Amino acid sequence: MSVQASHPLQTGLTFDWLKLITELKTILDPERVISKPEELLVYECDGLTSYRQMPALVVLPRSTEEIAAVIQRCHQYRVPFVARGSGTGLSGGALPVENCVVIATTLMKRILEIDLENRYMVVQPGVINTWITQAVAAQGYFYAPDPSSQSVCSIGGNVAENSGGVHCLKYGVTANHILGLKVVLPDGEILELGGKIPEMPGYDLVGLFVGSEGTLGIATEITLRLVKTPEQIQVLLADFDSVEAAGSTVSDIIAAGIIPAGMEIMDNFSINAVEDVVNLGYYPRDAAAILLVEVDGLPLEVEEASEQVKALCFKNGARQVQTASDAEERLRVWKGRKAAFAAMGKLSPNYYVQDGVIPRSQLSLVLAEIERLSREYGYPVANVFHAGDGNLHPLILYDESVPGSLEKVEKLGGEILKLCVQLGGSISGEHGIGADKRCYMPEMFAAADLETMQWVRQVFDPEHLANPGKIFPTPRTCGEAAHAHAQWEGIPAF
Amino acid sequence: MSVQASHPLQTGLTFDWLKLITELKTILDPERVISKPEELLVYECDGLTSYRQMPALVVLPRSTEEIAAVIQRCHQYRVPFVARGSGTGLSGGALPVENCVVIATTLMKRILEIDLENRYMVVQPGVINTWITQAVAAQGYFYAPDPSSQSVCSIGGNVAENSGGVHCLKYGVTANHILGLKVVLPDGEILELGGKIPEMPGYDLVGLFVGSEGTLGIATEITLRLVKTPEQIQVLLADFDSVEAAGSTVSDIIAAGIIPAGMEIMDNFSINAVEDVVNLGYYPRDAAAILLVEVDGLPLEVEEASEQVKALCFKNGARQVQTASDAEERLRVWKGRKAAFAAMGKLSPNYYVQDGVIPRSQLSLVLAEIERLSREYGYPVANVFHAGDGNLHPLILYDESVPGSLEKVEKLGGEILKLCVQLGGSISGEHGIGADKRCYMPEMFAAADLETMQWVRQVFDPEHLANPGKIFPTPRTCGEAAHAHAQWEGIPAF
Repeated sequence: MSVQASHPLQTGLTFDWLKLITELKTILDPERVISKPEELLVYECDGLTSYRQMPALVVLPRSTEEIAAVIQRCHQYRVPFVARGSGTGLSGGALPVENCVVIATTLMKRILEIDLENRYMVVQPGVINTWITQAVAAQGYFYAPDPSSQSVCSIGGNVAENSGGVHCLKYGVTANHILGLKVVLPDGEILELGGKIPEMPGYDLVGLFVGSEGTLGIATEITLRLVKTPEQIQVLLADFDSVEAAGSTVSDIIAAGIIPAGMEIMDNFSINAVEDVVNLGYYPRDAAAILLVEVDGLPLEVEEASEQVKALCFKNGARQVQTASDAEERLRVWKGRKAAFAAMGKLSPNYYVQDGVIPRSQLSLVLAEIERLSREYGYPVANVFHAGDGNLHPLILYDESVPGSLEKVEKLGGEILKLCVQLGGSISGEHGIGADKRCYMPEMFAAADLETMQWVRQVFDPEHLANPGKIFPTPRTCGEAAHAHAQWEGIPAF
Repeated sequence: MSVQASHPLQTGLTFDWLKLITELKTILDPERVISKPEELLVYECDGLTSYRQMPALVVLPRSTEEIAAVIQRCHQYRVPFVARGSGTGLSGGALPVENCVVIATTLMKRILEIDLENRYMVVQPGVINTWITQAVAAQGYFYAPDPSSQSVCSIGGNVAENSGGVHCLKYGVTANHILGLKVVLPDGEILELGGKIPEMPGYDLVGLFVGSEGTLGIATEITLRLVKTPEQIQVLLADFDSVEAAGSTVSDIIAAGIIPAGMEIMDNFSINAVEDVVNLGYYPRDAAAILLVEVDGLPLEVEEASEQVKALCFKNGARQVQTASDAEERLRVWKGRKAAFAAMGKLSPNYYVQDGVIPRSQLSLVLAEIERLSREYGYPVANVFHAGDGNLHPLILYDESVPGSLEKVEKLGGEILKLCVQLGGSISGEHGIGADKRCYMPEMFAAADLETMQWVRQVFDPEHLANPGKIFPTPRTCGEAAHAHAQWEGIPAF
């Protein structure tokens, strides 16, 4: 799957890259235009390391105007560009395409405005997710969507992929927290979408842009909602003899009308992986599953909800339920969950994370089927999931150096995704489609639905310069899926 | 502002309406194709009664397929069509355009699927808002967005206008509760947008469609989220010596991290209007303002939050705070608020409702300015508003039979909207733009932003057949605003 093209400056392509470089160096300082292959190497992939592609150039703008000027040049010469934040995405959304300019927002890390009375902040796209909360925590506010990578991932990347996180069960994903965007379109035009209050009239172009994975342009200023920090937070850790029991506890909690801030399940494999690597000494290694439930709100409310959650855990056969109330204990409990992906990386040469969604009622069925597929393919699969949202993250462990293993693992991941779709779910909960899952889009959407999305894209990017080849299946990259695609009428080829 | 064109069947227009009628009668039963002027009369306006226009025809389909077949004919003959639910909209979204076919969803009132485990319902667009809750209330669920007209308005109209309501402070507007849509596009094609779980990958076309006011097509099946009914609900009614004190109580409540289900302010004028008409005997006639706060959740949570709200009311100088806990008392408290618009209708020959949004911090300033404008123009203005959302509903009372009064009242309403925009707010919180406010769109959006919206529309409706002339300013209907519009490039004229 790895496409290792030579660098255009070495292959003597007809397009005059040196001319473009010279022009870009007049827009940006020369040191903010990167063209040496050895310096470009770090940009050849994002968090989906199994796909790699060298870009032709990387630029490091500082402002909306600089991005607009760079994109105007790309548009003029019909050179594709790919936006990149911290490069932590897991679906290859920031994977370069051949002969492209990567526009990295690394230097756009300024907080531009904070208005606590009206609960919003305006930031540049390179700002790191946790910085937002850090800037207003002392005043009692936080930014809710919290991907596991939140200490390193950028808000621009969160907007592109409509990122989720542990707390999205109660607070909603990124799309629910973005009020306005300043964006640069693929022809270099600057637009203002939305504003500083929610629910503006007219078409919801902010909603359209969030989650569009860099294919409609680049967000250069982001106005986001701040949420009041709850007075009290408590985390419960329950352990169970079966994953099913943990799953039905989740259903019972939701049915009781309680909306925890987060509700996560980890299976025995994940528990032990985390304990092996992080040495918490806190997760019960012999449990078939643990359930983590975070409850927040006013003090009595938290007490009341926690008691109810605890009772429902025991009703479903929990062996024990531990409670973490102070900030330090809570961090300790969450540490294992947040370290789960990294733990797999230490246990196995490689791992492949999937990100499927199922209706909550199908949880037991899907987990049993994942176990069956794991045995059939001969690869261990660890399960860590946002149980409240039905958002699964099966982690498939493999060794890339064994020939053919990546293909098999991708096939296994694909079977899990198809199962999710069959059950009325989705092929992505929070990681996006990117380069990784575009071939599965026709499993989920009718040709006419995908065609309509592509027509909308045409409005913003008729030349397909903005992160081309992402989200939508293409004849070159997707087998059967592409076949259906090729029959669509009217959409110009990529 | 009233445009009373003759009926096309009487004017002998060149287009062969009789041929279209004959064809439509083969698609639908003949009695579901209405063409007699006296029967068409009820369709000449919606809740914005100051605008009227007779349609050429009205059809009453029963299914997606029938709507698709009707629209295919409209497309074939390039006849514009306007979707209509219950016709309770307040911005003229369902106002017919000249020589159009009105597609009324009156007969599409079936609930198609209820899945409580996965918390969704699939309904036809003519289903009345309250019916949804009624269908699942016994099982402990409800549908959250609750416009004041909820006992008569249709869910299709709610989707078109992205309706709000008293409970949207906590639960969000219609857009937050729609998971999927089956839609018929303006060429008759049937599309499925979204699904039965939230946050599907790809572009958020559901979000784009919700609030598009019938200009992108017609939603024919709607999958909506159900919410668990809170265990306990309490409504507090506080009265104040000044509107400012009520306003700062709202800010204090929000700042304390409490999110009430609803938070409404009514000024003295509204209080007395409601008492005169509904005779509640419950609202304090001598209060400058009353604040209604509904708190819901688990029993202890409600108790705790209510105590805090009460304390904050007194801190801000409330004269007294009454509490309504049982369902009957609560209904009684809300009855006055929900009857406010109707009360104005009884007190004054006519009233004009505006629907502006301001950042919460600007509340006092805006109310003072509305009072000044009221005196300057010489029309009484009653204020009823969703205070938690900063969503104002100034009700301007006037007598249409006095020549020139409607124009003056509209000008006064326009000044209020411009003020909202200047302060960083919006010209519509929940009623939509429709025919009424399109001329103010350039106050709020740059030409390039409006142009982008129009280009998106082109994808769905290149011939401008779906509810043309709504949302966007047009040269014919908007003076100065149209001037800016006329300078846009590339968008075909309407």
